[in-house]
Amino acid sequence: MDEIKAHNIELVQEKDQFVPVSVSARHIHLQQEHADILFGKNYTFTKHRDISQPGQYSCVEQVTIIGPKSKMERIRVVAPLRKQTQIEVSKTDAIKLGVNPPVRHSGDLKGSATITVVGPRGQLDLTEGCIIADRHIHMSPADADKFGVNDHQKVKVEVDGEKGGLMYGVTIRVSDRYALDMHIDTDDANAFGIKGQEYLKLIK
Amino acid sequence: MDEIKAHNIELVQEKDQFVPVSVSARHIHLQQEHADILFGKNYTFTKHRDISQPGQYSCVEQVTIIGPKSKMERIRVVAPLRKQTQIEVSKTDAIKLGVNPPVRHSGDLKGSATITVVGPRGQLDLTEGCIIADRHIHMSPADADKFGVNDHQKVKVEVDGEKGGLMYGVTIRVSDRYALDMHIDTDDANAFGIKGQEYLKLIK
Repeated sequence: MDEIKAHNIELVQEKDQFVPVSVSARHIHLQQEHADILFGKNYTFTKHRDISQPGQYSCVEQVTIIGPKSKMERIRVVAPLRKQTQIEVSKTDAIKLGVNPPVRHSGDLKGSATITVVGPRGQLDLTEGCIIADRHIHMSPADADKFGVNDHQKVKVEVDGEKGGLMYGVTIRVSDRYALDMHIDTDDANAFGIKGQEYLKLIK
Repeated sequence: MDEIKAHNIELVQEKDQFVPVSVSARHIHLQQEHADILFGKNYTFTKHRDISQPGQYSCVEQVTIIGPKSKMERIRVVAPLRKQTQIEVSKTDAIKLGVNPPVRHSGDLKGSATITVVGPRGQLDLTEGCIIADRHIHMSPADADKFGVNDHQKVKVEVDGEKGGLMYGVTIRVSDRYALDMHIDTDDANAFGIKGQEYLKLIK
């Protein structure tokens, strides 16, 4: 009886260590002034698809990003508008474009990479704004309690499978606006054989 | 005195755990019949650059590979010729091409992905031959002794840096024709922030 109980507790604890993962392809967040330039004054964006964080959605509207080596078309706008325009690419994208973005938390754009953005109504030559997003896990304060972690803490995440491994330096991000979800870029997804929607093991 | 000695032994042991790494971009190995079709009968390939394994070199000659979704140009031939034609791509490449290659050891091609290859003199429609190469470490029997590992053994490799982590399932490949070198594809390189020529820690 005790053995069964102990086993159940173990199962619950095991399940509690897992987080769902989503894969972020290259995309752009826009500030109002830049949306005005690219799409026209006070343009209203159309929802393409909800994404994992409450109130956030990818849009039907797309832009082209241009670096010194090449351009990439069909980069989705993610809404709603933000305080500062931010372009998130993978290292693979960056090499192809010929840009050298740093690995950064979302919103930490000082000294990030230069890039040009072209929309249907105009062009932006940004002196900064292009980053490689760090590996991070969004969670609510209740989730943070459950996992026993704090905002900005770095954790490891384990991936099973034939290209499995451990990701180091995964940033915990806590807010009551967040739903539990790990975000990785397409390089991490493709290197570790992750398609998205898998549950990965959080290791403190 | 004893302390200094102990410290030196530790340093030597620490150094012994490290292997240099090379990044393999997409490339093709050709068998004679296929080289004949793509480049003409008994064509002589021209060396572009030596690669890390003795006697192996990338060639000036390039081909185009074509999948259901797109094509990729300027795929380098790696010489000398082999028993069986093999196309190595990353998962990122595979998604772009629209092919679904398995993760395989070099030479293990049964049931691997279909792909079309175009050269200056002809075209090949291969029913198999396209793989994602597994993470592997080439080493001599003397290196294997030093690391205390065997041919085909799976090890882990640790990567430092802001996108660091542990790669699981790295295959040891031992031959007296091999020089010590780990090979990873561009997805692993870009996900882990590896440029090539770094030394990574082998963990048994």
